[in-house]
Amino acid sequence: MTRNSLTPKTARGARTLEKILRAAEAEFGERGFHEGSIVGITRRAEIGQGTFYLYFKTKEAVLRELVLYTSRQLRHYLSEQVIDVDDRLAAERIGFRAFLDYIRAHPNLYRIVQESQFVDPDVHRAYYEAFAEGYIEALNRAGQQQQIRTGDFSVWAWSIMGMMHFIGQRYLLWNEDRELDDVVDAVLDLMVHGLERPA
Amino acid sequence: MTRNSLTPKTARGARTLEKILRAAEAEFGERGFHEGSIVGITRRAEIGQGTFYLYFKTKEAVLRELVLYTSRQLRHYLSEQVIDVDDRLAAERIGFRAFLDYIRAHPNLYRIVQESQFVDPDVHRAYYEAFAEGYIEALNRAGQQQQIRTGDFSVWAWSIMGMMHFIGQRYLLWNEDRELDDVVDAVLDLMVHGLERPA
Repeated sequence: MTRNSLTPKTARGARTLEKILRAAEAEFGERGFHEGSIVGITRRAEIGQGTFYLYFKTKEAVLRELVLYTSRQLRHYLSEQVIDVDDRLAAERIGFRAFLDYIRAHPNLYRIVQESQFVDPDVHRAYYEAFAEGYIEALNRAGQQQQIRTGDFSVWAWSIMGMMHFIGQRYLLWNEDRELDDVVDAVLDLMVHGLERPA
Repeated sequence: MTRNSLTPKTARGARTLEKILRAAEAEFGERGFHEGSIVGITRRAEIGQGTFYLYFKTKEAVLRELVLYTSRQLRHYLSEQVIDVDDRLAAERIGFRAFLDYIRAHPNLYRIVQESQFVDPDVHRAYYEAFAEGYIEALNRAGQQQQIRTGDFSVWAWSIMGMMHFIGQRYLLWNEDRELDDVVDAVLDLMVHGLERPA
């Protein structure tokens, strides 16, 4: 599932677009999509309504673009963190911790992505499918290099994404009652060794 | 996080309540919470508006009760499926498959539970916390009986719940492009053995 994104022709246009998207992240994150408004976005972005409408026709269109933008930003951030890490299991730990740090810096991300399914189910799905694609590729590569077991990498990628999503929700957004490093250790312990008792 | 649920005093009252909740499941599932209406619910339930208001004052209140009801129903169904299964790893497989079957029979469940976070974040969270509680207990018991490794069972329970949630979303609700039994096998393979290559 691919979607064309807005690509402004000038650097100034790109900056304005980014301002709008950051303002939309705050507006939708704090007030929700239904309560949130274009006026709220332009006020936070400190731009005129006319400028806004050069980029987007509707509130729905901003949310769609925001989800695609967020997806690119987060994936770029995570791949930067593990770019020099050759071993997959080490990369899993670093990437997972980086994911939690990113969520902490963008506490509205979950709400926005989850709410997008009620506005545009395709873009919500595209968000996760883009992640899965990169993840499956990474597991495949690690399997070929014998860094991990061989297995059903598609199902495994979706499983691991599910772990990360729920752990972020529970231990970061809902109740940070545990040291995040301990939580990451415990998830990795399960992901690497599984439930089975050693023979 | 506990919430009191409605408990009608008569069998007839309980039947009417269930009719309302099933109608709300269809109404909110098909039309979404914002588009869905009390009129739509009473029409589907074939009851008068007056009867509806004996049970609920608002649309929000029905959604809350529906989420709590769904949580109890699903947990009851899953525990029935594994009641005679002594081994935890066998129970994981049977329970996971049963979860997918339940989702197939109630395709609106995900949408309703997920949408509830934008209406009443507490009840959305309570839905998952009730699951986690039972899950942690089951893992603890299995650990004591040496059916699985000992570990951080809270983090593991949330991790496994995340796996199941994402797998249901991807391989059942979004795209049933794989045999579900194969998907369950692949998830169990990861959950039981982990990513690490055998020594």
